[in-house]
Amino acid sequence: MNEKDFQEILDIGIALSSEHDLSKLLDKILSKAQEVTGADGGSIYLVKKDKMIFKASRNKTLLEKFGPEKMKEIVKTFVIPVTKKSMAGYTVVTGKLLNISDVKNIPSSADYSYDPAFDKKYGYDTVSMLVIPMINRDGEVTGVLQLINSMENGHPVAFKTSHEKIISSFSSQAAISIANAELNEDLKNAHFDTIFRLSEAAECRDKETANHIKRVSHYSRLLSEKLGWSPEACELIFWSSPMHDIGKLGIPDAILQKPGPLTPEERAVMEQHTVIGALVLKDSSIPVIAKSRIVALTHHEKYDGTGYPQKIKGEDIPLEGRIVALADVYDALSSKRVYKPPMPEEKVISILKEGKGTHFDPVLIELLLENMKKIAEIREEFSDKESDYDNFLNIKTIDLKTLLKQER
Amino acid sequence: MNEKDFQEILDIGIALSSEHDLSKLLDKILSKAQEVTGADGGSIYLVKKDKMIFKASRNKTLLEKFGPEKMKEIVKTFVIPVTKKSMAGYTVVTGKLLNISDVKNIPSSADYSYDPAFDKKYGYDTVSMLVIPMINRDGEVTGVLQLINSMENGHPVAFKTSHEKIISSFSSQAAISIANAELNEDLKNAHFDTIFRLSEAAECRDKETANHIKRVSHYSRLLSEKLGWSPEACELIFWSSPMHDIGKLGIPDAILQKPGPLTPEERAVMEQHTVIGALVLKDSSIPVIAKSRIVALTHHEKYDGTGYPQKIKGEDIPLEGRIVALADVYDALSSKRVYKPPMPEEKVISILKEGKGTHFDPVLIELLLENMKKIAEIREEFSDKESDYDNFLNIKTIDLKTLLKQER
Repeated sequence: MNEKDFQEILDIGIALSSEHDLSKLLDKILSKAQEVTGADGGSIYLVKKDKMIFKASRNKTLLEKFGPEKMKEIVKTFVIPVTKKSMAGYTVVTGKLLNISDVKNIPSSADYSYDPAFDKKYGYDTVSMLVIPMINRDGEVTGVLQLINSMENGHPVAFKTSHEKIISSFSSQAAISIANAELNEDLKNAHFDTIFRLSEAAECRDKETANHIKRVSHYSRLLSEKLGWSPEACELIFWSSPMHDIGKLGIPDAILQKPGPLTPEERAVMEQHTVIGALVLKDSSIPVIAKSRIVALTHHEKYDGTGYPQKIKGEDIPLEGRIVALADVYDALSSKRVYKPPMPEEKVISILKEGKGTHFDPVLIELLLENMKKIAEIREEFSDKESDYDNFLNIKTIDLKTLLKQER
Repeated sequence: MNEKDFQEILDIGIALSSEHDLSKLLDKILSKAQEVTGADGGSIYLVKKDKMIFKASRNKTLLEKFGPEKMKEIVKTFVIPVTKKSMAGYTVVTGKLLNISDVKNIPSSADYSYDPAFDKKYGYDTVSMLVIPMINRDGEVTGVLQLINSMENGHPVAFKTSHEKIISSFSSQAAISIANAELNEDLKNAHFDTIFRLSEAAECRDKETANHIKRVSHYSRLLSEKLGWSPEACELIFWSSPMHDIGKLGIPDAILQKPGPLTPEERAVMEQHTVIGALVLKDSSIPVIAKSRIVALTHHEKYDGTGYPQKIKGEDIPLEGRIVALADVYDALSSKRVYKPPMPEEKVISILKEGKGTHFDPVLIELLLENMKKIAEIREEFSDKESDYDNFLNIKTIDLKTLLKQER
């Protein structure tokens, strides 16, 4: 390898290790590998125990032929077992790369063979392949990078030995970057799992179902997407809305679970759940907690200033508070509660329209109404089952032994 | 640079990007930089806005002279402003490296100067220095790597131009690895912040203080350390114990907050908080949640099998359940509650000793008693203030405006 190649590998390493989003990272690995080798196409498999998951794919010819939408469908994820029979599996089992000049000439004595089904289905002509195991620092093969058709003057030719060297060298960095991105995802998921579990548990005192929280999160994200927010901002409101009612932890059962209407004094106590929520979540530099605090405090304000606890109005109400306010009320009206059946859709819509500009932000109402189809899909996906309504009430019937699987 | 140098940089890059623990990473960066340049010592500053934080340091001569304990004291962290007056600050402001053959010959016309205070204090003789900015992909200087005294045949000589090249090249990878490790820490902290906040909020219904949870976490970690568990396992129980009483969310106020003794029926309901907690935390592949479930379910079992909910005994009770059981009871006895003053230490100890082998794991009792000094330090550090006892009760006095700092 020459100095230019080395510098390229270093640069690629730095580019890969600064990408934390797994799917963007895989795409970057593929595009860098294509750049370096002139490959027309490429795919990445990730190895999980005895399975390989097809996770990412790029193909210039097919993209041109079918366009990006159809392409997504063509390269849908699938899972195959790790065996020597596939070329990718062979590299996992042996830890060795395969550089094949023409897949049609693979001898029948080889452990692996080329499956022409994909080529036939999509009218593609696979000739040369470079299949490289991605190996982590413990020497384990954690993935496979599979490149197809090194192009020269518009024709597929064999991958060069110099390609092998460069790709092998950067594939270790790729393996580590993938592990890092997966660790990141795990940490995020752990955090969000906790937010959902504890928010759900808190809601159960109020006889709300666990799915209520999920629906409100999804409705809120949908509205923020339609407002044109960045993906990160939409993600943030998705994870901030579950804790909107966390302050109900501080409201006595006698008021929270009172069957009839509340007296003015009881109502005043009940309304404090917004402030208690803000107290639980105060003084945090963590974005999702800081945002949750704003949502908890402001999700009962009304657009005309008649809400609570601060009676602020219009644009003075943080937009995330206005979003969750609408999502929360929409869900309360449109779903079953222990004390009421779900309201028919026309009725819900007419109530929301009535509240446009008084209770609700008029822009958000319009966005909601324009997207009723997507809203209905979310409602369906997270619909409540009968058993959801008495979550904590049937604990006597639970088998303790099944609860105690000791994972140590 | 030759092929060997390049391969070394690649290997260093891979070693750095697979280290997620920040302090281990900084140490690794320093030791690799020492290897490559023969430097006797080195330090790393991290840049945070207009400040530089001295974060890590290694020095072979001083380590030999003073030993590891004293060394820790010598290289304690400190913060200095980013200005051109210090050499590290100069590299941050200009983005350029400094390669100084002898710090005593820095001309007085230079922006920066060498401060001999450290050398005088510890009898060290700084001669040559290589000070290199660590630059991230956006071109920002996020840290400084400062190397001291390149050694040849036991004598400090100037750093070579080839050292400059190698260190500059690997310092970009170092900058990104540091950013990745910091991101990891942020994600973990965000998760743990949520666990503590929501666990504390849940405990407040029970008129427990927020510090109760913190003390139990610290006592539990201390016991696990004394059992000789790995740092990771000790960390895990620290973060799993806060949710031990999360199931109290499912217990009605009338029972949870009853001032007098409970009837047998009420007691049966109260005891279900262990099972409810396990339900809230069930079916998670996330280590901290899975462990929390075991703690929630088993922290009221007794060593002789007379606890609840499963009446399991001895070694059948998961060790983390036995640990938190002891930590929880110790804290209940030794701290003030709304209904009782703290119990005098001798009384607490005699009660615990009485429970050895009946209520508590005898090994754990011994470990606790052997470490009463550390236990007392934890109790002091997280002692309750008067105001902690009515957390949610004084919300009427809170200024709403201060609560609504809109961080958007």
